[in-house]
Amino acid sequence: MKIAFGLITKFKAHPGNRKALVNILLEVAVGLEQYNACIQYVVSVNEDDPETVIVTEVWTDSGHHKASLDNEEVKAIIERAKPLIASVEKSINMDVIGGKGL
Amino acid sequence: MKIAFGLITKFKAHPGNRKALVNILLEVAVGLEQYNACIQYVVSVNEDDPETVIVTEVWTDSGHHKASLDNEEVKAIIERAKPLIASVEKSINMDVIGGKGL
Repeated sequence: MKIAFGLITKFKAHPGNRKALVNILLEVAVGLEQYNACIQYVVSVNEDDPETVIVTEVWTDSGHHKASLDNEEVKAIIERAKPLIASVEKSINMDVIGGKGL
Repeated sequence: MKIAFGLITKFKAHPGNRKALVNILLEVAVGLEQYNACIQYVVSVNEDDPETVIVTEVWTDSGHHKASLDNEEVKAIIERAKPLIASVEKSINMDVIGGKGL
């Protein structure tokens, strides 16, 4: 039934820091271009909330996702993002079943 | 800044109906193959909750997304899904900024 691992993470930036956080997370997406196991890393903002940044990810499996967090380049970028993040409001692990655009 | 319209919808199926709901939503994804404006329509389940089905969508814009809801084929499939759905727990509209896999 499950074809991939999905993750939705909802960040709350400190007031006024959303744009800077978005830019850093877009850098993470570029850093992940080298990872074939990373199928998607999409950065979005929420129209109704000036501090929310949402990242939707799809990976071949959760193991590869976890391994990416040990990548020095990805770790360094995430360290730069931390001061901008007030909280990680929600993180939903998903079993991706299928659909269009994978 | 915004390159697309994104939507995350979290459905709660009636107990025992998750698989049937997933299958119908996968039919919606097939029905949307004809829509170039629909970049993604991904159906996932949540490991921690046997009744949750999550659909993540990316469209060129919200207008095309709304128009798809008037499509007779899509409408008919959604009607079949309704009896299986206990609630639509959450629906988050997003401005997609960018990333990998779009």
